[in-house]
Amino acid sequence: MPSSATPFLRDVPLAGALLQWRRCRADAGCPSSMPAVRMALADAIGRVTAEPIWATRSSPPFDAAAMDGIAVRAADTLGASETTPLLLDAESFGIVDTGDPLPEGFDAVVMREHVHLLDGRAELRAAVAPYQHVRSIGEDISATELLLPAGHRLRAVDVAAAAAAGATDVLVRRAPVVAILPTGDELRPIGSELGPGELLDTNSLMLAGQARELGYEATVLPIEGDDPERLAAAIGTAIAGCDLLIVIAGSSAGRDDHTAALVDRLGTLAVHGVAVRPGHPVVLGAIDATAVLGAPGYPVSASLTFDIFAAPLLAELEGAPAPQRPVASARLARKLSSTIGMDDWVRVRLGRVRGSLVASPLPRGAGVLTSLVRADGLLVVPAPLEGHHAGELVEVALLRDLLQIDHTIVAIGSHDLILDLAASALRVRDPRVTLASTNIGSMGGLIAIRDRLCHLAGSHLLDPDTGEYTLPYLDRLLPGRPIAVLRLVHREQGLIVAPGNPLSLHGGVADLTRLGLRYVNRQRGAGTRVLLDYELARHGIDPRSITGYTREEPTHLAVAAAIAARRADCGMGVLAAARAFGLGFVPVTREPYDLVLEPELVEAPLLAPLWQLLESAEFRASVERLGGYDTAEMGRRIR
Amino acid sequence: MPSSATPFLRDVPLAGALLQWRRCRADAGCPSSMPAVRMALADAIGRVTAEPIWATRSSPPFDAAAMDGIAVRAADTLGASETTPLLLDAESFGIVDTGDPLPEGFDAVVMREHVHLLDGRAELRAAVAPYQHVRSIGEDISATELLLPAGHRLRAVDVAAAAAAGATDVLVRRAPVVAILPTGDELRPIGSELGPGELLDTNSLMLAGQARELGYEATVLPIEGDDPERLAAAIGTAIAGCDLLIVIAGSSAGRDDHTAALVDRLGTLAVHGVAVRPGHPVVLGAIDATAVLGAPGYPVSASLTFDIFAAPLLAELEGAPAPQRPVASARLARKLSSTIGMDDWVRVRLGRVRGSLVASPLPRGAGVLTSLVRADGLLVVPAPLEGHHAGELVEVALLRDLLQIDHTIVAIGSHDLILDLAASALRVRDPRVTLASTNIGSMGGLIAIRDRLCHLAGSHLLDPDTGEYTLPYLDRLLPGRPIAVLRLVHREQGLIVAPGNPLSLHGGVADLTRLGLRYVNRQRGAGTRVLLDYELARHGIDPRSITGYTREEPTHLAVAAAIAARRADCGMGVLAAARAFGLGFVPVTREPYDLVLEPELVEAPLLAPLWQLLESAEFRASVERLGGYDTAEMGRRIR
Repeated sequence: MPSSATPFLRDVPLAGALLQWRRCRADAGCPSSMPAVRMALADAIGRVTAEPIWATRSSPPFDAAAMDGIAVRAADTLGASETTPLLLDAESFGIVDTGDPLPEGFDAVVMREHVHLLDGRAELRAAVAPYQHVRSIGEDISATELLLPAGHRLRAVDVAAAAAAGATDVLVRRAPVVAILPTGDELRPIGSELGPGELLDTNSLMLAGQARELGYEATVLPIEGDDPERLAAAIGTAIAGCDLLIVIAGSSAGRDDHTAALVDRLGTLAVHGVAVRPGHPVVLGAIDATAVLGAPGYPVSASLTFDIFAAPLLAELEGAPAPQRPVASARLARKLSSTIGMDDWVRVRLGRVRGSLVASPLPRGAGVLTSLVRADGLLVVPAPLEGHHAGELVEVALLRDLLQIDHTIVAIGSHDLILDLAASALRVRDPRVTLASTNIGSMGGLIAIRDRLCHLAGSHLLDPDTGEYTLPYLDRLLPGRPIAVLRLVHREQGLIVAPGNPLSLHGGVADLTRLGLRYVNRQRGAGTRVLLDYELARHGIDPRSITGYTREEPTHLAVAAAIAARRADCGMGVLAAARAFGLGFVPVTREPYDLVLEPELVEAPLLAPLWQLLESAEFRASVERLGGYDTAEMGRRIR
Repeated sequence: MPSSATPFLRDVPLAGALLQWRRCRADAGCPSSMPAVRMALADAIGRVTAEPIWATRSSPPFDAAAMDGIAVRAADTLGASETTPLLLDAESFGIVDTGDPLPEGFDAVVMREHVHLLDGRAELRAAVAPYQHVRSIGEDISATELLLPAGHRLRAVDVAAAAAAGATDVLVRRAPVVAILPTGDELRPIGSELGPGELLDTNSLMLAGQARELGYEATVLPIEGDDPERLAAAIGTAIAGCDLLIVIAGSSAGRDDHTAALVDRLGTLAVHGVAVRPGHPVVLGAIDATAVLGAPGYPVSASLTFDIFAAPLLAELEGAPAPQRPVASARLARKLSSTIGMDDWVRVRLGRVRGSLVASPLPRGAGVLTSLVRADGLLVVPAPLEGHHAGELVEVALLRDLLQIDHTIVAIGSHDLILDLAASALRVRDPRVTLASTNIGSMGGLIAIRDRLCHLAGSHLLDPDTGEYTLPYLDRLLPGRPIAVLRLVHREQGLIVAPGNPLSLHGGVADLTRLGLRYVNRQRGAGTRVLLDYELARHGIDPRSITGYTREEPTHLAVAAAIAARRADCGMGVLAAARAFGLGFVPVTREPYDLVLEPELVEAPLLAPLWQLLESAEFRASVERLGGYDTAEMGRRIR
């Protein structure tokens, strides 16, 4: 790996990359649009018209009654009034229902509410105008009229109108076919038992799903290893059967990254590296009149690459506008920094707090697919910016509809497994209700309450001076502001250790300085970190004497995962997290875990489902089953 | 039809109707949710989870390099600096690419940009922290973590994450099956030649399409006539094979409307008549544990009935929130009146004029399906309101995304076929561009310009005093406001007559008073109406001497359609409209047709595609081919 020879990517700005790709495709003879095909109306829903649809007949095809009543000749009714009722004989009217054709010779309809039938004659008490309550031929569609332009994506109402206008089939663009080629020696199909270093091929499933969600046909090809010759053969076969080939992974510049070189060798390489994050190691090119996209293997990168490059191309091939997400303005829940020179695509959760939308950034790693799963929106920090301040107004492209977001309870603060359990239980009871918790530690939660960026903050902050939890912090951080506090649970905190506690840690925090022991810590501002520091101070232990004190994980589960993976021997956390991984646990203390909120919200309809849940015996039992929780005070207002 | 015995519908308010239907379904033993079925992940996209998805393994499943470079032991790098570089021998590091598992024993990664490889040894110029550039096991998903709650509609990213979390299949609610039973003696399948009074069954195509657009299976049953016994049998068979049966037409209280009575006889009738417009004759009930919806036969009513009643029920059966459309605020382009006591669903076109959204109501008839085709949004005037004023701010549920609406050129005013032709030609050139023209006559267009409710107004208003067109009206309506006027065409106006001009109308408007001749007029404010009145005054003819002078149609094509249908003998209009229906034409005059707009807009990017189109020889030729148009001055600014 002589670094002088390393082909680092020179990232091209997005707009330029799209332009270079378009030019490259044109030069390679890629078609600018899909061929037009004739389809039956029912099959054409979702497809794009290849020519305008002109009406060949009128709809309705005849003058029809627009009301239930009688058809009359308007001229016959002249002079009828309340004082001089008129009697029409049987030949001078006809009974009609809504939609019936107007009988020959008649030109108006009288509603049956305004008619009296007497011995086969009809009594009218008002004259009627010609064409009263008549639905004229062509009221909806006139023959020869333009119904739909070319380039229109057909919906159900469109094909129904086309049928009414005389069409039985329509000329549309054939849907582009997407082929997906997963590559990598380490990849195994979903469902495989994994060996060391192996990964499941989840990206193919995702990208094929994204293509199908937009109405395209998608084929997933067998996984190819990192052998360039076999890859070249697989690519050669694949491009013959599709309009866009997506090669997954191998798009960067590592030793096994062959996509760019292969596209260059087999066809034309337009771009290698685009200034977007995550997802910058993108390959754009064309081989034998087929567009080729090399997507990074990180799942978030792969998914965004599809949205940014594949979706607009596929729409363009259909002659239709690219799909666009609705946009909304939101306040940023916390500071967001960004790399200058890169468009930074940040996944956010949204909620409405005191009437305005609040966007909480989700984890930004290209590998954190759950950030897309949990995202309500996408926020792009443009290349020239260093980021945004907390509270700044930003534009967010919506991934969920805003009415759903209005049922979102925004919790920011300490992490506890009960919040996950509550989120699921709430959704079972009412699928509209979402409990979105962002885990940034107890202190961060209280600050979010202060800045009105969330509804609820989970907190278990121990005040070393008083031994009290949370309340002293409220007085310090939010002096004079009325704040409500509800008890969620008491819970066991302790040392999470390997199964069977092989290092025999029984002395509590006093054991942590033991030589060779590898500790894993929680981040600053986390209640569990405060608890550790309190316990260390109480025992007169210098944090610097603990190996791993500076290594921080953001949740109880992450701490437990590190120990389960034998990357650490021990860390502070709740019993439930230890149990989740089948680990050992050495109790240290029992602490209250509370929910902090503004008092007005206690009675708000938004939170009612949560309070009901906390009252439920079934939910309390499920919490107790996690282990280490005492629900006796669940839901009690303590301030 | 003894009116005393007529079962008029007593319309129930929407909320109450939904509640009564739910109770009725429960009483009839309809399931409250679909059965849970296990599905492979790829097939489960679009379905709703029936239980929470908990992670059974962590992702990534191992610690991995997050950068291309070398894996090292952090402890080995202590002391390395710019001045004291450190050399690691071959056993003390391993070359890794992004995503590679961290080799056993190593705990950090150094980016290759920061490494010099020399004779198999690696030179470092900085110490590294443990876990630098390492993607930890479980960074994305920790085993036992809640991935997705029950009641979640799965997307491509969700199933990919579920796969990464260890799932190969998921428990989801089976998609409900919708059966559609079209009824009516007058109905014929799409593609049939129609006899007198017959109609095409376009509603089945539309409702099945609407169900499929939401991801449900839909079956269309054969058309049934209006015989109650055969209908009862068809309904009995249908309910066995579906979760929701939609019976189309027969839902009102006319002579052939049997749906309500049949539901009552075969099962339970919950509601007959809901206070929504269009669409109030709705039947809601249940038969043998299957939900039944009787939808009106008018196409707009049928479509809205699906949105209001079927879509929420189907989502409820899946345990998911009902689909919701995004909402935006818009100014109403003109006064909108509404029936008190009915929720009035009005289709609107949207455009952005001077930064704010403008909503132009489309034709309101329940039979005007094209109003749904052309709609950008739906506006509900609630039951207690009489309507809205012009310019009032209203909430509109969006049917198209706002970014598409931002490319919409809003034209309000006189109707001319060239606008339809231009709309289609613009869309062919750029599928994003929409030209939405609302036809309310020249005068209405100038008022819309005055009130800044449109970008363009088509006008051909003759000033009887000066013989000049349009400009004198601008001075009167918009005194002191700078207004630009561009010439579109000169066009032939004349009398549209039956083919071969059987009444030998050659004397122009002087012929219109001829005894027995049936005239069809344009509405007040239309340029063509002004022209007729001018010609009549010039010849000293009293309008009251013309039969049909008071009968108004809104467009040239509607006038031609009336003559083609032999409902009238003659009407004033353009040659192109006569040609469109193969009718005769007696020229009366040649007039200019102009586009009126605010001067700032002449240079606006929004309108550039239109000006380019007007310059194109191809477009001008297509206009000339319509007949009666002179394009010599097309695009010339005359003011």
